[in-house]
Amino acid sequence: MTAEQRYAITYDDVLAAARTLVGVVNHTPVATSRTLDALTGRQVFLKCENQQRTGSFKFRGAYTAVHALAPETRARGVATFSSGNHAQGLALAARLHGVPAVIVMPDDAPTVKAEATRGYGAEIVPFSRQSVDGETLQYEVAAARGMTLVHAFEDPPIMAGQGTATLELLQTIPDLDALVAPVGGGGLMAGGAVVAKTLNPSIHIFGVETAGADDTKRSFDAGERVSIPPPTTIADGIRLRTPGERTFAIMQAHLDDVLVVSDDDVLETLRFLIQRMKLVVEPTGAVALAAVVRGLLPAQYRRVGVFITGGNLDPALLTRLWPAAR
Amino acid sequence: MTAEQRYAITYDDVLAAARTLVGVVNHTPVATSRTLDALTGRQVFLKCENQQRTGSFKFRGAYTAVHALAPETRARGVATFSSGNHAQGLALAARLHGVPAVIVMPDDAPTVKAEATRGYGAEIVPFSRQSVDGETLQYEVAAARGMTLVHAFEDPPIMAGQGTATLELLQTIPDLDALVAPVGGGGLMAGGAVVAKTLNPSIHIFGVETAGADDTKRSFDAGERVSIPPPTTIADGIRLRTPGERTFAIMQAHLDDVLVVSDDDVLETLRFLIQRMKLVVEPTGAVALAAVVRGLLPAQYRRVGVFITGGNLDPALLTRLWPAAR
Repeated sequence: MTAEQRYAITYDDVLAAARTLVGVVNHTPVATSRTLDALTGRQVFLKCENQQRTGSFKFRGAYTAVHALAPETRARGVATFSSGNHAQGLALAARLHGVPAVIVMPDDAPTVKAEATRGYGAEIVPFSRQSVDGETLQYEVAAARGMTLVHAFEDPPIMAGQGTATLELLQTIPDLDALVAPVGGGGLMAGGAVVAKTLNPSIHIFGVETAGADDTKRSFDAGERVSIPPPTTIADGIRLRTPGERTFAIMQAHLDDVLVVSDDDVLETLRFLIQRMKLVVEPTGAVALAAVVRGLLPAQYRRVGVFITGGNLDPALLTRLWPAAR
Repeated sequence: MTAEQRYAITYDDVLAAARTLVGVVNHTPVATSRTLDALTGRQVFLKCENQQRTGSFKFRGAYTAVHALAPETRARGVATFSSGNHAQGLALAARLHGVPAVIVMPDDAPTVKAEATRGYGAEIVPFSRQSVDGETLQYEVAAARGMTLVHAFEDPPIMAGQGTATLELLQTIPDLDALVAPVGGGGLMAGGAVVAKTLNPSIHIFGVETAGADDTKRSFDAGERVSIPPPTTIADGIRLRTPGERTFAIMQAHLDDVLVVSDDDVLETLRFLIQRMKLVVEPTGAVALAAVVRGLLPAQYRRVGVFITGGNLDPALLTRLWPAAR
């Protein structure tokens, strides 16, 4: 069985995505801080995908996926289910290709994300996470509109596109001991793992979730995909009930472990990123670093790449983080 | 006459400062954005000194200057006048060398800067800008305490230290047509101009001020240093009444022009930097980019390096910039 058959994507798929994305995505900076290194006892390299177009890495996969469609298929438009960042990524990718987009979005998604998605010209179909399954609804909406469903993490072009963030990071900082990223559906982690293990088979890879959305941790420990009740966590980007089928197969093969942090850990790290590192980050974007700050990573990994996945912070949250802003 | 005699510092001084600062300063990232490039019609490279230690480039010069003192002199401590960023830079530089620091600070300096300065262990001597001249007071305080005065911009080691920010930028992005930086006392601009003109004699260099603090623009046009009344501008880091003597000599020799923006231009650019580029920036840190966004730079410069000088944003200002945070 080839790697492609086993894992849905290969390193070559990521290289092809990177070629598609030349001149389309921002080559995001890698931020470092001596304060952060002293705090964690390691050398930490932050891949700043909060500074990606649309404010998150999701644009990489979304553009790759829309670009991969046959022109006549693409012209009928694209649909998806997303709490906001894949929504924005797909909305901009559709606009850049001149095709319509419809987004199925939970009604508790951050206002700033819904507004930005509409700003890119997409139509939003809201629903309640308590009574409706967005995973199912998105297929119904796509079918009713005659549009192509671009799934947030299960499509191979999505995984390949997200993998380009890891490719950029390892081209900039090649000699990392470990990579740490948040896990929602697993697209970033799966695409990144394929790249990282190809370029450096001895690298160690860790996913991170919050305690209220630990579906991948539970699945990883059980050795099979399990489902959890509707997640409750401040990290809206990883509120998933179960990991993706294809992404989980890759994560099972390549991850050392999935680490779990609390919402309070996330908020404390978010405060550090904004006040000390001067980066605007959303809660999900602080999840991976929170695990490193809390000391959950084994001590032997000295040079650590950490994904800051998104920066679409709801301004209302600032009052929780920074009481003086009231 | 040698360049050193004419201009107080040489390229070699900056190289020496860079060696002193290895392992001490953050190598700050260069941020780019396709949105920003589309908005300005150029390729813009933002040198993110808001992500420097203490939240501004000032730490580079302050550490270089404290390091350059003879040990027995240094041990008696250092004093200065600063509205906040040189204060924080000098306070941390003093602490890292284990010596005391006293800062003469106007009582309208942002609270966040005064608090951070005290947090680094420095003593603050507050005064009113309307009735007292901080430039004079700092010498009195230093003499009374038996401390060395580390001037915010006129000391050659300060200029050399600030010049390392331009050295880093040009090592990362060598082929720039133009450099744009805010001008307060002129330390960043003077140190940077010496580096840039050495590495690339055909590069074009522009300072930027706000209309309420345009002492360098008036001096540049007059061909000699002139003084303005106490400045009124939101950009607290450039509230200077006259440019430095040594820094002005360098700026006269190397700058193409000094551009002038309004406080509203600064606030609009600040909003863009926070909401779209996901960077926490203080008003002064947005001054240089404001000139580029407003189209004040001649059209022929296509690849432009812009200094984002500081990130010590007062949280109260966020509520003005980002109303949903109220």
